[in-house]
Amino acid sequence: MNKQAITNIKPCCIWLTGLSGAGKSTLAIALSDKLSGQGKHTFILDGDVLRKGLNQDLGFSDADRTENIRRVGEVAKLMVQAGLIVIVALISPFAKDRSLARALFKEGEFIEVFVDAPLATCELRDVKGLYAKARMGELTSFTGIDSSYEHPAKPEIHIHSDQEDLQYSVLRMIKYLANS
Amino acid sequence: MNKQAITNIKPCCIWLTGLSGAGKSTLAIALSDKLSGQGKHTFILDGDVLRKGLNQDLGFSDADRTENIRRVGEVAKLMVQAGLIVIVALISPFAKDRSLARALFKEGEFIEVFVDAPLATCELRDVKGLYAKARMGELTSFTGIDSSYEHPAKPEIHIHSDQEDLQYSVLRMIKYLANS
Repeated sequence: MNKQAITNIKPCCIWLTGLSGAGKSTLAIALSDKLSGQGKHTFILDGDVLRKGLNQDLGFSDADRTENIRRVGEVAKLMVQAGLIVIVALISPFAKDRSLARALFKEGEFIEVFVDAPLATCELRDVKGLYAKARMGELTSFTGIDSSYEHPAKPEIHIHSDQEDLQYSVLRMIKYLANS
Repeated sequence: MNKQAITNIKPCCIWLTGLSGAGKSTLAIALSDKLSGQGKHTFILDGDVLRKGLNQDLGFSDADRTENIRRVGEVAKLMVQAGLIVIVALISPFAKDRSLARALFKEGEFIEVFVDAPLATCELRDVKGLYAKARMGELTSFTGIDSSYEHPAKPEIHIHSDQEDLQYSVLRMIKYLANS
């Protein structure tokens, strides 16, 4: 990937969806590092971080998840208007909510990336110890356990994070962005 | 104001508060134009615009106004983190809500600008026809009519928009920013 290709990448919203532990945040950081290393202005909107600020009033009911995703979509839209490449890392389990987020953007500005790893793998990693809590019933409405994750039907990019090298995934994303 | 002074301005949140019709949006646009003309990366968060997007679920009750301001503060904070100079244009009538917004930022990052024009002047202008509606009772909880506006006690900048030339106000703001 040459510098020229990266330079051509326009402000957009790269929306990483997938199970907890699938590697969304890791991928977001790696992509952001790569792009900013080439002088692009990026910003990561991480679902976990936003739940401590903008979305601190929301829980994990279906309605609250929908509102959570709506707000993140609206903020991402403002940031794209501001000229940034926004990378969203958010479980965003329901297809209809992702569609509503997509609808906020112009054609081609919203790039849905399915960060795909089997539930068993995510649960085995359990970096934050959340799956264990969910299995013990200490957490409810946990995606993959007692709340569903609807696989994206036609994501712009499909990443098998359990099989691909991180840097290879980043290059795939950048290649897509540079050609779109 | 020389270019060097403007170049030194750091990412921050310039919070314009005042009555409807006091000239917040006009000032926001003029300031943004001046700064971006010198290569600074700015973005305007306008209360009216946000009520059609992020805050479309909120009304004008005291509780909803508080939530409105909280969200704008959180988004402004994210944008400052992203490296932007954010200009907020929002009536934000209650001192406690403005204090909560200020508390989200680091020392010196939040610049409260009181855009001050007498109610009679704002009502006479009535650019959006809202004062007329409020007087006729078609709009309730309208700031200045049947909902209060608490004057900022110690704003960083106090602009008398009915007495000052717009470009003079812009220069005053830039001078403050360049020296802070």
